[in-house]
Amino acid sequence: MKKSVEHLTTPKVLRDAMVYSLEAGGKRLRPILLLETLRSFGGEWQLGMDTACAIEFIHTYSLIHDDLPSMDDDDLRRGKPTNHKVFGEANAILAGDALLTYSFQLIAGSTYPNFSPNKKLSIMNELAQSAGAEGMVGGQVADIEAEGTSIDLEQLQFIHDHKTGKLLQFCVRAGAILGDATEKQLSSLTQFATHLGIAFQIRDDILDIEGDEAKIGKPVGSDTTLQKSTYPKLLTLEGAKQKCEEHLALSLKALREASVSSERLEELARFIIQREY
Amino acid sequence: MKKSVEHLTTPKVLRDAMVYSLEAGGKRLRPILLLETLRSFGGEWQLGMDTACAIEFIHTYSLIHDDLPSMDDDDLRRGKPTNHKVFGEANAILAGDALLTYSFQLIAGSTYPNFSPNKKLSIMNELAQSAGAEGMVGGQVADIEAEGTSIDLEQLQFIHDHKTGKLLQFCVRAGAILGDATEKQLSSLTQFATHLGIAFQIRDDILDIEGDEAKIGKPVGSDTTLQKSTYPKLLTLEGAKQKCEEHLALSLKALREASVSSERLEELARFIIQREY
Repeated sequence: MKKSVEHLTTPKVLRDAMVYSLEAGGKRLRPILLLETLRSFGGEWQLGMDTACAIEFIHTYSLIHDDLPSMDDDDLRRGKPTNHKVFGEANAILAGDALLTYSFQLIAGSTYPNFSPNKKLSIMNELAQSAGAEGMVGGQVADIEAEGTSIDLEQLQFIHDHKTGKLLQFCVRAGAILGDATEKQLSSLTQFATHLGIAFQIRDDILDIEGDEAKIGKPVGSDTTLQKSTYPKLLTLEGAKQKCEEHLALSLKALREASVSSERLEELARFIIQREY
Repeated sequence: MKKSVEHLTTPKVLRDAMVYSLEAGGKRLRPILLLETLRSFGGEWQLGMDTACAIEFIHTYSLIHDDLPSMDDDDLRRGKPTNHKVFGEANAILAGDALLTYSFQLIAGSTYPNFSPNKKLSIMNELAQSAGAEGMVGGQVADIEAEGTSIDLEQLQFIHDHKTGKLLQFCVRAGAILGDATEKQLSSLTQFATHLGIAFQIRDDILDIEGDEAKIGKPVGSDTTLQKSTYPKLLTLEGAKQKCEEHLALSLKALREASVSSERLEELARFIIQREY
C-alpha cells in the first residue's frame, strides 16, 4: 500500500496524510476477501493485487471523511489520532479525495498482463457503483440523516447495506469476476457477501457495547453517544447475537452453493464474525 | 448533466446537492474544450459525451470541496450560495465524493459503441492522474500551503499548473485520444493546453482585480483578502496582461503545429482569454 503512494510527485504533507491512514493498522479485511475469493477459483493472487489495493484505498478514504468534524467528529481511529487531528481538516479532505481518485488509477493503469481491458472496465464500473451515490456515499448520507431520529429495522438495514455492505459485496464480486465466475456463481457469491456484510455490521454494533476499548482502538459506547440506531437497540443484545448467527449461516449456505474451493473463505467469514476488534 | 444524476437511487438530499452544483451555471469550458478537440479531428461528438460529463463532474466536485469552510470558506459561487451553505458541510463533502466517484462510472460504464475498452482505460488513467495527488488535488494542497506566505513565480506556476492546468490538459488530450491523434499531435495539443491553462489562470487573477462582480458571480478582491499570491502581484497588472498575451500566442502556435481543423479551438482559446467572467 505504502509503496504505491510514496513515489508520487506531490506536496509532502499530502503524501504523508495518505500514507498515515493507509498504514494506521487496518485489518485489510476487504483486500483479503477479494484475494481469497479469487483463490477459491484457483486464480493467481497477483491478478487481484491492484484491485485489492484500490479497495483498501477507497475504504481508507471513507474512514478519513467519516471521521471529519462535520460528520462523526472522531478523534481516534484504530487507537491513533484521526487524519484531520494530525494534518488538519483541509488536508484530510484532500487526502481522502486523492485516495479515492488513485484507486481508479490503480486499476486503469494496472500493468498485470492477464488483467484484460474488459475485466478492468467491469470492475471499475462495479467499484464506482458500490462506492458512490448508490452505494457507500449514499449510505453515509442516510446514516447522518438518521442520527438522533428513531428508525426501524428496514431503514437500519438500508443504511448498512449501503454504507458497508455494497463495498464488501464488491470485494467478493471483483474476486469472482477476476476468477472467471459463471453468472450462477456470481449470484451465489453475492448472496454470501450480502449476508456476511449484515452479520459483520451486527457484530460491529455488538463490539461497540461489549468490546475491549484497547482492542477496537476507539471508545466503546460511541454509538450511544451519537444516538445512533443499532441492531442491539432494535433487537436487544441477545436478539442481535442471534440475528448475527442467522446471517452467518445464510452466508455459508450461499457460499457452498457457489461450488468453489471455499474452505478459506469460510474460515475468513467465521473470523470476521467472531472477531474481537 | 442533470439527467445522469436524477435517476440515481440515493437519498434525496444527496441527489439534490449533486444536481444543485452541476446546474449552478458553469461555463462548461472543460467539456466544450474536449468536444471541440475531438471535432478538430473530425470525430463524432457523441463519442466524447460521457468523458465530457465526467470532466464537468470532477470540476464541480473540486469547486464544492474548495469552497468548504476548512478551505477557501466561500459563501458564494457563480452568484449563488455555495453547496455547504445550502446542504450543510457533511452533505457537501459527500456530494463532492459522489460526483468524483460517478465520473469514473460514466466512462467505465459508457455504452457508446465506438468507445473502445482501451480508449476508456487510457482516458480514465489520465483523468485520475490529472485530478489526483499528482494533479489537481496536489495543486490545491500546495495552494493552501502557500496562503499567507510569499512565493515566487515558479511556485505560483506549479500551483496553477496542478490546480487547474492538468485538468485542462486532460480535456484536450482526451479529445485527441478519442480522435485517434498521432503521438506528435498529442504532444502539440498538450502544449496548446498548457499555455492556454496558464493564460486562463492569469486572466482569472486579472478578473479578480478588474472584473465586474455581477458578471463573475463572487466578490472581486477575494485573492487579496485570502492573501493569495497572484500573477498581478508578482508581475504588476500590466506585466500580467502582457504575460497572458504571450501564453495565448504560444498556445495558438502549438495548436497550428498540431495540423488539425483548428478554427473553433482557436476561437475558444480567444474566448477563454478575453472573457469577462
